[in-house]
Amino acid sequence: MRIGFIGTGIMGRPMAGRLQDAGHRLFIVKHRSAPPQDLLDAGAVLAESAKALAEASDVVFTMVPDTAAVENALFRDRGVAAGLTPGKVVIDMSSISPSATEVFAKRIRELGCEYLDAPVSGGDLGARDGTLSIMVGGAREPFERVKPLFDVMGQTVTLVGGSGSGQACKVANQMIVGINIAAVSEALVLSSKAGLDPVRVREALLGGFASSRILDVHGQRMIDRAFEPGGRIELHQKDLGLALAEAGRLGVATPMTSVCRDLMDACAAQGGAGWDHSALVRAYEQLADHKLSTN
Amino acid sequence: MRIGFIGTGIMGRPMAGRLQDAGHRLFIVKHRSAPPQDLLDAGAVLAESAKALAEASDVVFTMVPDTAAVENALFRDRGVAAGLTPGKVVIDMSSISPSATEVFAKRIRELGCEYLDAPVSGGDLGARDGTLSIMVGGAREPFERVKPLFDVMGQTVTLVGGSGSGQACKVANQMIVGINIAAVSEALVLSSKAGLDPVRVREALLGGFASSRILDVHGQRMIDRAFEPGGRIELHQKDLGLALAEAGRLGVATPMTSVCRDLMDACAAQGGAGWDHSALVRAYEQLADHKLSTN
Repeated sequence: MRIGFIGTGIMGRPMAGRLQDAGHRLFIVKHRSAPPQDLLDAGAVLAESAKALAEASDVVFTMVPDTAAVENALFRDRGVAAGLTPGKVVIDMSSISPSATEVFAKRIRELGCEYLDAPVSGGDLGARDGTLSIMVGGAREPFERVKPLFDVMGQTVTLVGGSGSGQACKVANQMIVGINIAAVSEALVLSSKAGLDPVRVREALLGGFASSRILDVHGQRMIDRAFEPGGRIELHQKDLGLALAEAGRLGVATPMTSVCRDLMDACAAQGGAGWDHSALVRAYEQLADHKLSTN
Repeated sequence: MRIGFIGTGIMGRPMAGRLQDAGHRLFIVKHRSAPPQDLLDAGAVLAESAKALAEASDVVFTMVPDTAAVENALFRDRGVAAGLTPGKVVIDMSSISPSATEVFAKRIRELGCEYLDAPVSGGDLGARDGTLSIMVGGAREPFERVKPLFDVMGQTVTLVGGSGSGQACKVANQMIVGINIAAVSEALVLSSKAGLDPVRVREALLGGFASSRILDVHGQRMIDRAFEPGGRIELHQKDLGLALAEAGRLGVATPMTSVCRDLMDACAAQGGAGWDHSALVRAYEQLADHKLSTN
């Protein structure tokens, strides 16, 4: 297939690379920054604009930082929408607003095209290894059509529901991940200040109902003080902002998410916007005047 | 060994039964309620008092509901302490206050005996199958001496630290479990009210960083409305009360635990004290005026 890929950053670059390696013809677009040389070396074609990229492609992917960036890529002058012809598929893999996604999908479908929202979980490591979890919203027919492309990038690919459902599912994912990080932080700081060794507490707890990916991976990061990202605090702040906006719109009380966002804000205020989100433990350490100590 | 076991309820009865099946001589004590007939049939001896039970035993276990019940069993007139002679071991497997535990341990050691706190995670199923996670506080020598008894009851047996450490670790466990239940509730209710199917959301999320035992087991309970206990809301309320008391004593901010306890209180106020703790989702459903619906 001819594939256009907009957004070749930390996540998008390895994802586009995997599609290219699988034998697809790749089109990328000019940025302010130089385009990734490895993609060009492997034969990627540099389009003059998002419009030109869309004209050349069967399927157009976007993988950009936020809702405004997706809207801009799709609907600005000489954007993707201007280059679409009926039958093409637009797939947004960014993590953005579920309700804005419903609007974008409607506008794309009015052009006779298909739209899928397909945000991912698994980080840059998952992007490189093709082990992402991909949560998809949209119709079944285009989903089945592009499923082989998803399979090149992800290990768990789930059609969750209609347009916006992928983004809503990602929001739910980020709520649970963020709250779990706070839970592990809170439990480790309390037990450490009580004199326990966090290494043994983590081990004992992994054997029971408190077990989770976050206790395993991020609990270890907290103990090792391994706070280089990974998943940045500032991106998780954005995701929890989306969660709270959806919750407000729908009338759902989300007290744990609210508290978790406050703690992320505190962590960012302490200079941690660019730290890995496991560094949320530092906000707790500040409040307790106690740093996790291993015996 | 000659083993005294005080507290043969939902948890204690199968635990004592496993020790008996492993070939140990079992002593139990008279209750207001009739003693378990299966234990008597298998040869358990009924002692007249906790004092008499302690006189007859090498090791005395307690498995009772709360801190006051442990204190009562150990230190009342004709309690365990009155029957101890030097060299015996007292093991409290209840979930009680870490700081009260330090006091109990000191008083028992002053009698020339050993004291271990060894609360468990894994529920009545784990007690029957001998797959409990056992978190132990105390000295290494008596721990090694009674380790074969723990191995009859548990799969993961961890010496966490000195006296009170087992209880402090259990408190950390219950904090993470409770907060995770709230996180899963919050995410499922929000995504369900947004129109998503909780069955697909749970599946998609189990593939990524949001994965946890609670999302797996209790998420399924929420979907199936399987709210018979299991672990009761009122016991989890008690455990979070212990966490907040320890946090207050030590000067550790635990905002997620505070909110979680509020939600458990709300659930109990709605008649849910005896429900499984996964029924915390009902407090969220009440607030959102939306019940989880599967498509």
